Amino acid sequence: MEELMDRPLSEDLGFLLSRASGAVVRTTNAALVEHGLRVRQYSVLVLACETADGVSQRALATVLGLDPSQVVLLVDELTAAGLVERRPDPADRRTRLVVATAAGRRVRGLAGTAAAAAVESPMALLDEADRQVLRELLTRIWSATT
Amino acid sequence: MEELMDRPLSEDLGFLLSRASGAVVRTTNAALVEHGLRVRQYSVLVLACETADGVSQRALATVLGLDPSQVVLLVDELTAAGLVERRPDPADRRTRLVVATAAGRRVRGLAGTAAAAAVESPMALLDEADRQVLRELLTRIWSATT
Repeated sequence: MEELMDRPLSEDLGFLLSRASGAVVRTTNAALVEHGLRVRQYSVLVLACETADGVSQRALATVLGLDPSQVVLLVDELTAAGLVERRPDPADRRTRLVVATAAGRRVRGLAGTAAAAAVESPMALLDEADRQVLRELLTRIWSATT
Repeated sequence: MEELMDRPLSEDLGFLLSRASGAVVRTTNAALVEHGLRVRQYSVLVLACETADGVSQRALATVLGLDPSQVVLLVDELTAAGLVERRPDPADRRTRLVVATAAGRRVRGLAGTAAAAAVESPMALLDEADRQVLRELLTRIWSATT
């Protein structure tokens, strides 16, 4: 197996990104189970908690890098769980905004602590300077695609 | 939307990893369509092409960070497409090895060129030194999880 990884895939940035991301997502999902969330639902909930007035599903799709149809499904799931609700946008009646409920804000706090603790394990070999470099490189990749 | 990303998620390494990885996977999948492959199938095919004698499904699962059941499905798909085949392991009759066919090796060459070209777009803002740093950081994340 060592031998396999001396070969081209070990240099392939797409592969390395996907594998590291998959490992972190699995770890985080495991930590979020007890809060009834998976990573993508959690990300939507975090963003819905960031504003008092709510966020449009279009903005969620853009920030999260998901298809609008995926966002609709995630918001449906969070709504069914009582963690967010959709309200008409006062500035544009055709748009509805996603707003966190009081229960959603409580769960977001607990889930945030669990998610932050979970990510420490895959990040154990990176000090704070490494993490800052990684954030910056990942943000540049995202910028190039949008 | 800028405002949303000034908030906690923009510091969250798990989120940044997942979003960057998703962008690269989408770009690569789009480039692999004409070769009849998706990213995970392509990764299995690359590894199957690395050895003349083949690779076990267990080794594929470990290297790729996938469940064994996912690997079985991917190998089934590649077998149906005529790109790999399963052969008994001469060293252990209970194990079967995944070996690339001649057609698989041809497709792997073409798909490899397409995948390498596709990743240039999301990586456009990273020079070779940045990419080497990113490879090293991503490899350390993976090491910490295995």
